[in-house]
Amino acid sequence: MKKNMGPVNAMYPSLTTIVGVVVNGKPNFSAIAHVGIMNHGQPQYISVGINKLHHSNAGILEHREFSVCVPSEDMVAETDYVGLVSGKNTDKSNVFELFEGELKHAPLIKRCPVCMECRLDRVLDFEAHQVFIGEIVATHVDEDILREDGKIDLAEVRPMLFDMASASYWSLGSPLASCWSVGKGMKRRLKG
Amino acid sequence: MKKNMGPVNAMYPSLTTIVGVVVNGKPNFSAIAHVGIMNHGQPQYISVGINKLHHSNAGILEHREFSVCVPSEDMVAETDYVGLVSGKNTDKSNVFELFEGELKHAPLIKRCPVCMECRLDRVLDFEAHQVFIGEIVATHVDEDILREDGKIDLAEVRPMLFDMASASYWSLGSPLASCWSVGKGMKRRLKG
Repeated sequence: MKKNMGPVNAMYPSLTTIVGVVVNGKPNFSAIAHVGIMNHGQPQYISVGINKLHHSNAGILEHREFSVCVPSEDMVAETDYVGLVSGKNTDKSNVFELFEGELKHAPLIKRCPVCMECRLDRVLDFEAHQVFIGEIVATHVDEDILREDGKIDLAEVRPMLFDMASASYWSLGSPLASCWSVGKGMKRRLKG
Repeated sequence: MKKNMGPVNAMYPSLTTIVGVVVNGKPNFSAIAHVGIMNHGQPQYISVGINKLHHSNAGILEHREFSVCVPSEDMVAETDYVGLVSGKNTDKSNVFELFEGELKHAPLIKRCPVCMECRLDRVLDFEAHQVFIGEIVATHVDEDILREDGKIDLAEVRPMLFDMASASYWSLGSPLASCWSVGKGMKRRLKG
């Protein structure tokens, strides 16, 4: 039996990321899991939804640049920390060792296996959140998490998945099946 | 060492959903993992990014309603199937047993443990994709996947996570740590 819970957001789990910006001349970082994939194909656009009360928003609006880094499981404490404290009263510029990419205002975290630099494309205004849509400019990846075909090995990234209902980070499991493939038997059966 | 791979979308894994619409008077379904969370708080807004060539888009634009259902691992073949074949030449209205919610043009799938009904809020236009942002109107959940506190037990949902690099569906792992909690030790240490 189904229960109507009312308008509950059940779009979980979502990928836990660390969004990097420059505010008042300093790098600032925030844990953000309210993310999205917009256009697929070139250009690539992704979204990060940040509460309007957060410190990071002004930095993105000023410089029109930000980074989205994907932390591994072993960074769970640091990731949670940058989600717990606000840049308004805490300097988070030294929490991570950084590296330089192509943009000037998209600070990149060395320890994250995957880091994307984004140029702001547009901002969506909602009741509590601003959603920043970024065009991906460059993606920096640890060489030792690449597979032989040169693509990212998700098992090596060991991303953390966020669930609001349990207020927990979850690990990723194992590959289940191939996309655009495991349904082919059904396609043949329904056509036959 | 980091490698600059160029503008690669590395925002994976993402949640695999089945988007339901009504097109030409018939329910149609498509597997969509390019999803997002927009506003958090009331109202709740989520996004689904659908290639402009797809059959579903016209239905959402006509009725301004759609559903987003979360299939379990045991629905991997059916989920992949509705992503493999187009509603333009295949009738997918009988693939799933449906149930009625509050909206007339947001077909809901009985077998999915979680189903959200959405009213279209706005449409974003990108090069290849239209992103449909929906306000969640109602969320229907299998009673036997609810925890004692009445919230959704993600372990019972057994969602499928999509990865573009491996073109695979992945399972969810286990809870790692509590959000807004596991970083508290670091907060105390850095303040002290």
